[in-house]
Amino acid sequence: MRILLTISYDGTKYYGWQRQKDKMTVQQRVEEALSELYNQEIEILGASRTDAGVHAMSQKATYSVIEPIIPVERITRAINHLLNDDVIITKCEEIGEEFHPQHSAKAKTYSYTILNSENQEPLLRNYTWNVKRNLDIEKMQEATKYFIGTHDFSSFRATGGQAKTTVRTIYDLKIHEEPTTFTKNMANVSYDNRKIVITVTGNGFLYNMVRIIAGTLMYVGNGKIKPCEIADIINSLDRKKAGVTAPPQGLCLMNIEY
Amino acid sequence: MRILLTISYDGTKYYGWQRQKDKMTVQQRVEEALSELYNQEIEILGASRTDAGVHAMSQKATYSVIEPIIPVERITRAINHLLNDDVIITKCEEIGEEFHPQHSAKAKTYSYTILNSENQEPLLRNYTWNVKRNLDIEKMQEATKYFIGTHDFSSFRATGGQAKTTVRTIYDLKIHEEPTTFTKNMANVSYDNRKIVITVTGNGFLYNMVRIIAGTLMYVGNGKIKPCEIADIINSLDRKKAGVTAPPQGLCLMNIEY
Repeated sequence: MRILLTISYDGTKYYGWQRQKDKMTVQQRVEEALSELYNQEIEILGASRTDAGVHAMSQKATYSVIEPIIPVERITRAINHLLNDDVIITKCEEIGEEFHPQHSAKAKTYSYTILNSENQEPLLRNYTWNVKRNLDIEKMQEATKYFIGTHDFSSFRATGGQAKTTVRTIYDLKIHEEPTTFTKNMANVSYDNRKIVITVTGNGFLYNMVRIIAGTLMYVGNGKIKPCEIADIINSLDRKKAGVTAPPQGLCLMNIEY
Repeated sequence: MRILLTISYDGTKYYGWQRQKDKMTVQQRVEEALSELYNQEIEILGASRTDAGVHAMSQKATYSVIEPIIPVERITRAINHLLNDDVIITKCEEIGEEFHPQHSAKAKTYSYTILNSENQEPLLRNYTWNVKRNLDIEKMQEATKYFIGTHDFSSFRATGGQAKTTVRTIYDLKIHEEPTTFTKNMANVSYDNRKIVITVTGNGFLYNMVRIIAGTLMYVGNGKIKPCEIADIINSLDRKKAGVTAPPQGLCLMNIEY
């Protein structure tokens, strides 16, 4: 019997998704809970290898068991009982043996959140990238159109990835502005801060690709790069032409479509 | 020279505001930074004694120094350099000697956030109270009017407070609904979760008063208490008639007006 888990986690304290020798990762945390639950070693296969400090609303992972001792509808609660509350299972479903969490994925969506504010907000420090200089969100929005489509994204790939091809398709890339919890609740108090949320959907992403896109869009917002230069940066296939790699804590895996 | 600080903090790891013997508190964290900065023992006087796990967007505190070795406009950055990023100074201003952070306060505003969702969200676990049963927000809103005004709030006071009188005035009490980060960013994906945010402004609050109001409003939302019963609960002066004390992590000190 093959099970598909939907997993939500706060990546702050974890060394990423992928199991490592000496460091606690999200995969290990979930595998430990499953192994305890089934009283046998269970290995899971995750859809996305999120890095240290990166979060997920909706990571996917599969595992197989020969004897399904626990009814599917009870697994979610049973595993969550054995997990910390910084990693939880939000859904659990039976799935066909041919399903592969990576190869069967049609699209992935990530969000990247910038806190554009002179002051860091303590409550948002682990979930946003604090950029103090005021960003021009309209220019950032103008730049998004150059990313959309099928391109060789070598300029937006960190070394260390294992991808066979550097061609990827971005279906959608949107940027919107949000008040922070505080600005929203306190209409009568003026704080100079806002969140800038980048949401990107593609058929897959190269290593650090979303973080490099976020860092490059930040450069567009602060004027270092013009929106129209994005096309040249993509065509150059040169990582040095793109912007910085935005830090991990602003990144969240939002959804995987099958 | 007397200085007024505005302080923002994530209270998750702290044993509240007030200095204690063996446990790390926010007051101690700020005093340690100030003492290092001025190279002398500095004591601060805070406006509100927030409990363990409670957050602040805008706590206020004062301290005095005889020799103002650091220009006021440079203090914020200098202290923040010595603080963790879960406690930051957002503002620093010179203030008259007659100013008292507690006695000079005209109004305080707190927010209390409920995550009304079957699933806890890992990213919100330290900042919301997860109530799984669906709450009737309209009934909760209907109940707010009974709290507004000047009342003896003995029914909404935990033992342990040092207040001389139990009469307080609530100027405003509002409840609004918000999508979570995830529901908002992912319009095409349906999650059954929302935030219910209670915002309350008063001339002061008794010990645990906001958390008992939040717990009582939760009981109104789940049907245990009818909106019109709030008046009787207030008049009874009996803590046992009100609802539970909501847990600390949903509470945030939003503003203090002078």
